[in-house]
Amino acid sequence: MSQSKNAIENYLDMLNKDKISQEFKSLQDDICQQLETADGASFHEDKWERSGGGGGRTRIIQGKHIEKGGVNFSAVEGELPDKILKALNVEKSNFFATGVSIVLHSQNPFVPIIHMNVRYFEMDNGTWWFGGGIDLTPHYINPEEAAFFHQSLKNTCDKHHEDYYPKFKQWADDYFFIRHRKETRGIGGIFFDRLSGNDGFTKEDRFDFVMDVGNTFCPIYLELLKNNMDKPFSEKNKDWQYLRRGRYVEFNLVWDKGTKFGLDTDGRTESILMSLPSTANWVYNHKVVPNSHEEYTLNHLKKGIDWISYIE
Amino acid sequence: MSQSKNAIENYLDMLNKDKISQEFKSLQDDICQQLETADGASFHEDKWERSGGGGGRTRIIQGKHIEKGGVNFSAVEGELPDKILKALNVEKSNFFATGVSIVLHSQNPFVPIIHMNVRYFEMDNGTWWFGGGIDLTPHYINPEEAAFFHQSLKNTCDKHHEDYYPKFKQWADDYFFIRHRKETRGIGGIFFDRLSGNDGFTKEDRFDFVMDVGNTFCPIYLELLKNNMDKPFSEKNKDWQYLRRGRYVEFNLVWDKGTKFGLDTDGRTESILMSLPSTANWVYNHKVVPNSHEEYTLNHLKKGIDWISYIE
Repeated sequence: MSQSKNAIENYLDMLNKDKISQEFKSLQDDICQQLETADGASFHEDKWERSGGGGGRTRIIQGKHIEKGGVNFSAVEGELPDKILKALNVEKSNFFATGVSIVLHSQNPFVPIIHMNVRYFEMDNGTWWFGGGIDLTPHYINPEEAAFFHQSLKNTCDKHHEDYYPKFKQWADDYFFIRHRKETRGIGGIFFDRLSGNDGFTKEDRFDFVMDVGNTFCPIYLELLKNNMDKPFSEKNKDWQYLRRGRYVEFNLVWDKGTKFGLDTDGRTESILMSLPSTANWVYNHKVVPNSHEEYTLNHLKKGIDWISYIE
Repeated sequence: MSQSKNAIENYLDMLNKDKISQEFKSLQDDICQQLETADGASFHEDKWERSGGGGGRTRIIQGKHIEKGGVNFSAVEGELPDKILKALNVEKSNFFATGVSIVLHSQNPFVPIIHMNVRYFEMDNGTWWFGGGIDLTPHYINPEEAAFFHQSLKNTCDKHHEDYYPKFKQWADDYFFIRHRKETRGIGGIFFDRLSGNDGFTKEDRFDFVMDVGNTFCPIYLELLKNNMDKPFSEKNKDWQYLRRGRYVEFNLVWDKGTKFGLDTDGRTESILMSLPSTANWVYNHKVVPNSHEEYTLNHLKKGIDWISYIE
């Protein structure tokens, strides 16, 4: 048999938008399967289509341990809306965008809220980039788990470039900041955007990194879930969880660029707002009890903490 | 005794910023007193100062019937922040702004959420205007009460100008619109801004109107409270209330210009976000039961309904 490939086979080998969205779809499948095994509950799927082109698969779980979670895949294309053209400062262009987005809210207040996103964007002028990240919002900060979380992200980053972790860690600190509260959303993680074919990186390099981030999600989350999901908790713990979820809502609706962009450009509202918790509370001028775990948490919602080597 | 007034007495008679803020303060006092009498609970007051100049009195009630409510007064002054200069398209200027803002969330789902605001703004170049309004967000729309509400607003408006009600009613429909849900926040009311000394109106005319709006608040709300606060309700009614509050949160954090402006310009966060409810829920892709009161409500969260003469 000939070793040479035909045109179709060559195309299928290339790292193009079809291949990337196919891999993201498989990532969604894989993550959903692992979460279903861990929780015991099943995802509900809604397939949707975008009037301008493309669509997605929104998957929602309302489980025993994961109170409300979404694992979304989308691949959309068409003409870039005017608002985006303006924001990107480009002329009329067609685009393609695909990604996987995850937010999981837990029943147990000692299980943190987790968020993961990987995304790819290209325009028909040849411009392309990847973005994404993973960040953690514990209702109660546990420094050992924070170290485990950041070390896991650093391990993934270090396989690709030594600058990735420090740079993307700082980016997450700056991005996931609730300005009007002067506190970070949680203990950060990594955040990156517009990773393109520069600084000696190829498209394959960037893609491999982004897929590695995606595949780091389950080992991290399942460990944090397993360690905490059966811990006993009080009504006071639950109240604090609801308050911290209120802050999560504030960040997502006031400051998160992705959410605002989606709502502003007529995205599918139910898929965008799957990130909101089942229940959130607001208490006027809430104060934490001195020397409590709540106070410890609040005092550590700060930028620039080196969690990996954090010792008090 | 001489009937002529001295300079100080003349100054005190003039409709200047001191007089306006004094009247707004009295309005706050009066409304708080009436709400305390109706609910039985007392307001908690926080006085605060703004680093750039001025301050306010935030008053919060957590009562038997009013689950969480805020009646805020503020009078702030100083140099206009760059963001506001840009938004107003003016040169460097000093400003003075005073107002009363109210949001009340009820325990009973059949008592609507109500919002009222009166405000005055001036710059040292002589520019001034009034703004404000009252709007209602019933968890369950009751057309008779909607008619009563709008008729009360129309009565107040008609005393000042026949164009006021239709114009300000439409303005409220357009303003209190949750774009990403394609639904209005509630049944509207009146909304107005930048009422200045034009179209034959004097400053006194505008002030009298705005104070009349402020004084319309209690007769309206106390009637709606009294009629509904003791109605029996089910868990299902409560769940729907929490969902509708979720929409209220979405409007305030995503679309409300006042909230965004306050958070963006380092206003006092706890005073701005007193508008958020104690508890709000989100359910993925919630659907109302056909022919239910919930469906009726959802179908009537539309612009342009003439509630005064609304008959099905």
